[in-house]
Amino acid sequence: MSVASHSPEYIRAIMPYQPGMPISELAREMGLAEASIVKLASNENPLGMSLRARDAARAALSEVARYPDGSAFALKAALCRKFGVKPEQLVVGNGSNDILEIASQAFLGPGASAVYAQHAFAVYPLATHARGARGIEVPAKHFGHDLEAMAAAISVDTRIVFIANPNNPTGTFLPGEAIEAFLRAVSPDVLVVLDEAYTEYLAPAQRYDAIAWVERFPNLLVSRTFSKAYGLAGLRVGYAIAHPEVADLMNRVRQPFNVSSVALAAAEAALGDDEFLAQSAELNRRGMEQLTTAFAALGLEWIESAGNFVTFKIGDAAAINRALLRQGVIVRPIAGYGMPHWLRVSIGLPEDNARFIAALRQAQG
Amino acid sequence: MSVASHSPEYIRAIMPYQPGMPISELAREMGLAEASIVKLASNENPLGMSLRARDAARAALSEVARYPDGSAFALKAALCRKFGVKPEQLVVGNGSNDILEIASQAFLGPGASAVYAQHAFAVYPLATHARGARGIEVPAKHFGHDLEAMAAAISVDTRIVFIANPNNPTGTFLPGEAIEAFLRAVSPDVLVVLDEAYTEYLAPAQRYDAIAWVERFPNLLVSRTFSKAYGLAGLRVGYAIAHPEVADLMNRVRQPFNVSSVALAAAEAALGDDEFLAQSAELNRRGMEQLTTAFAALGLEWIESAGNFVTFKIGDAAAINRALLRQGVIVRPIAGYGMPHWLRVSIGLPEDNARFIAALRQAQG
Repeated sequence: MSVASHSPEYIRAIMPYQPGMPISELAREMGLAEASIVKLASNENPLGMSLRARDAARAALSEVARYPDGSAFALKAALCRKFGVKPEQLVVGNGSNDILEIASQAFLGPGASAVYAQHAFAVYPLATHARGARGIEVPAKHFGHDLEAMAAAISVDTRIVFIANPNNPTGTFLPGEAIEAFLRAVSPDVLVVLDEAYTEYLAPAQRYDAIAWVERFPNLLVSRTFSKAYGLAGLRVGYAIAHPEVADLMNRVRQPFNVSSVALAAAEAALGDDEFLAQSAELNRRGMEQLTTAFAALGLEWIESAGNFVTFKIGDAAAINRALLRQGVIVRPIAGYGMPHWLRVSIGLPEDNARFIAALRQAQG
Repeated sequence: MSVASHSPEYIRAIMPYQPGMPISELAREMGLAEASIVKLASNENPLGMSLRARDAARAALSEVARYPDGSAFALKAALCRKFGVKPEQLVVGNGSNDILEIASQAFLGPGASAVYAQHAFAVYPLATHARGARGIEVPAKHFGHDLEAMAAAISVDTRIVFIANPNNPTGTFLPGEAIEAFLRAVSPDVLVVLDEAYTEYLAPAQRYDAIAWVERFPNLLVSRTFSKAYGLAGLRVGYAIAHPEVADLMNRVRQPFNVSSVALAAAEAALGDDEFLAQSAELNRRGMEQLTTAFAALGLEWIESAGNFVTFKIGDAAAINRALLRQGVIVRPIAGYGMPHWLRVSIGLPEDNARFIAALRQAQG
């Protein structure tokens, strides 16, 4: 018998997450120059990061022989000032991916279940299955979350409901009132993980304040990230705001130094740069217009998106994707999300969006 | 019922890891200037990091809006060149702490057990208990691992044996032959996690090549880190070398972007700077001499250490620790390791070691 054969059945059944192809990988595979490649595959901020964050990260590099502050004192203080919460409500994660994993680790296990929507973020089933828990996938409604069906799907052994708003990869949006109504309907002993990775991209009319609900709903966990609008994907920082009891349990299973000192410093600085955030949202709004105008001109169907990406229907998506790659354009195939006829494209700089549109025209031949 | 009350019993029982006190925290608590504080509490490299690593980290900062390469292609290629292994044998972790957690996640669960030594690294019981597995702690022999007793303690449900060499916090060392004999004695379906976090500090006569054994023992996992001799603790990078089947399972539960792009770049560059490593080991050798000479002069007992730290007996360690803190010197109390009369001090620069010795004399009053 080998060591591997003794790994739990639910671990051996896991298929790992498929990330967007890195630029370096496509360059190697196709023999292309890295600078000639346009990557619109991972919902990254095309503006980069805030200059304040960059300066803070540079300064922090001089001290990287020291372990990071595992309590994230300074970043937590900044989050408390910004959101009016207390440090004991916070969990800082190695990206919000880590937040999702930590919540699963703290609340799921064999004999428990988690509820999530069809076409929702791939990490929900992964994190559920990695704990030997049962995943309950609820059919989507118009590619988005069907909250009524999700509430009805909750079983006696359900410990977590995952909600992504906006959802990735479909971009669908749930109004704040709908989520609040869901929280009222759900038993207070089920943790509702509200994943707001893309919340900074919401249009002003869409905005709602889930953090303010945590006081009324001690079973609500709001998950946020610095990887999208804040432009710090490469550094890995996310955070959760929850009831102190929930945060305490998560902090027990959190790796003590899960976030690097450079990431902590950059995130703290980024949090203070509202102007960068506004620029990023505005660039995104214009890029979304550019792409959807092109889709309309090409006669392509797309899903209305509240994020920094848009998913469109293209038929043989695998073939189109290959044709795009040959032209040095990386988007994201989402067959793994049960959408084999669709591709997801991130909003880039105007010239990158134009490159993508031209390559798509070419690919359609 | 609250959400927290539904968390598995084994999660609620966990007491989180107690890291060394950050300089910023002592400065706040005691009203001291940060520059006046000497921290010898976390086995960090007093030389900082290699300049090559620093330059690579700086360069990587310009691209942090991009996600890291989740496959760690370039770092793995460098590790393969250095150690003569294949990429499919490698798992890259957010520090070697992450490696230990990922191995536990992949191989432990309720109904399984892990074997580790008394006074061994605190993360072994933590990672075991967090998976609902049973921990089997084997009494130490002269503060080190009793490998015969550990082999005898393996139960039918044992999936992992953790061995730290050198061990932290005691610094004890097992000769390579002893570990090889242990591997021959142990059933091949038990994963042996050989944690070599401090291996770069071994004296030439102590060196052995565990990586070469992986081919003969497919149940061996060698864990290494960039946090100690390489001086990258703040960036968080470690790695495992194991059989491809073991590595594959671990990569399934690994978070896809567990290591930041800055850390990947710095680690790759650090790996090529043998001169920095040699300087660090030499500084450590001299510092160890400085400290143990002082212990002898003070009539204090210490444990012979193969690492970059040394543990000494001081009686009322809690009181001495408080007295050191008041003088701005941070060392590590290890009551949590069942050693309430001992303190662990990391080797620092000569002047930091001298500050510690003077403060210790003062504290003993």
